[in-house]
Amino acid sequence: MDKKEIPDIVVGRLPLYLRALQRMLSDGRQVTSSQELGEILGISAAQIRKDLSQFGEFGKQGTGYHIEYLVQKLREILHIDREWNLAVVGAGDIGSAVVRYKGFADRGFRVCKVFDNDPHKVGTHIGEFVVQDISEMAGTIKESGIQVAMIAVPANKAQDVVDQLVQAGVKAILNYAPISINVPPGIYVQYIDPTVHLQRMTYYLE
Amino acid sequence: MDKKEIPDIVVGRLPLYLRALQRMLSDGRQVTSSQELGEILGISAAQIRKDLSQFGEFGKQGTGYHIEYLVQKLREILHIDREWNLAVVGAGDIGSAVVRYKGFADRGFRVCKVFDNDPHKVGTHIGEFVVQDISEMAGTIKESGIQVAMIAVPANKAQDVVDQLVQAGVKAILNYAPISINVPPGIYVQYIDPTVHLQRMTYYLE
Repeated sequence: MDKKEIPDIVVGRLPLYLRALQRMLSDGRQVTSSQELGEILGISAAQIRKDLSQFGEFGKQGTGYHIEYLVQKLREILHIDREWNLAVVGAGDIGSAVVRYKGFADRGFRVCKVFDNDPHKVGTHIGEFVVQDISEMAGTIKESGIQVAMIAVPANKAQDVVDQLVQAGVKAILNYAPISINVPPGIYVQYIDPTVHLQRMTYYLE
Repeated sequence: MDKKEIPDIVVGRLPLYLRALQRMLSDGRQVTSSQELGEILGISAAQIRKDLSQFGEFGKQGTGYHIEYLVQKLREILHIDREWNLAVVGAGDIGSAVVRYKGFADRGFRVCKVFDNDPHKVGTHIGEFVVQDISEMAGTIKESGIQVAMIAVPANKAQDVVDQLVQAGVKAILNYAPISINVPPGIYVQYIDPTVHLQRMTYYLE
């Protein structure tokens, strides 16, 4: 199946399905339905069935989805049936919290390198990690073959860091800096800016 | 203009326009165009013009947008021509980083209360804030009239915290807990889950 045919908005819902299914699994559940998933996620059952059907035949009419099987399939589809090494750039409050975050472990990711340009931070520990100088970043990333990075640096440093990461072979960047960044074709960027989310909600408030 | 007519996806782009424009303003710029904005944001100029035209007539053909005026208008539209008090629930790594985050200040928000249920955290300081016991949360929020909250609590506590917040009058919740939550109509929720963003990108990687 040609991936280009599947809209990114559909791809974006798969991690939500997976998260809900993994939760059911850890609650000891074995079978679910698009109705139940829909209620949990606030997405229509029809939408969920349609999304999943783009990737294969995962459920049977009347018997629903076998959770463990669907989890395994979604992990394959999202390429997290392996574990991706993550580089974190920026060891401030946000970067440190990300490095310590326990929510990556059984979901396909593992922090393995942390970089900062502040001489007071370089050489210190965040959890089990030693903060490396940003001058070592490109070399270390190339050597380790790291393809996924999270950046939590000031806005005015973000593009430069991104350029270096891309040059070093990084293909996917999660950007916590509150600024839009430019990347060449074939490089993926996602954004986390809490203020953007808050403003999207206050629009609706009086 | 009836707000219900404007799709949420359009509303969701306004904070990105505002962020880029505020950055131009702080760089001393006075005028911009939908072309320039589009290049910065990776959104087509036509889309930007169409989005903005839903809210009024902000630019002139040939002369572009007056940045300061458009910033002021977008702030009004997003209801951040005032400052919203924020409650933060959960004083772990993420909650603490959020409390210390400097990116709210000139963008419409100000953290004003922090809650946790851990007796070891209650009474300690995060920056200028004293962590309050979660048992005081509902009362404090009602009293202060806080309408916006961010929660960074474990997944299995999130729904209970949300129910209490809604009961206390909170209308908009930014949820860092990696779980979908249910809220009554008229209450707004946005999600931040870095793993969801990462998985959306690894889909495209080999």
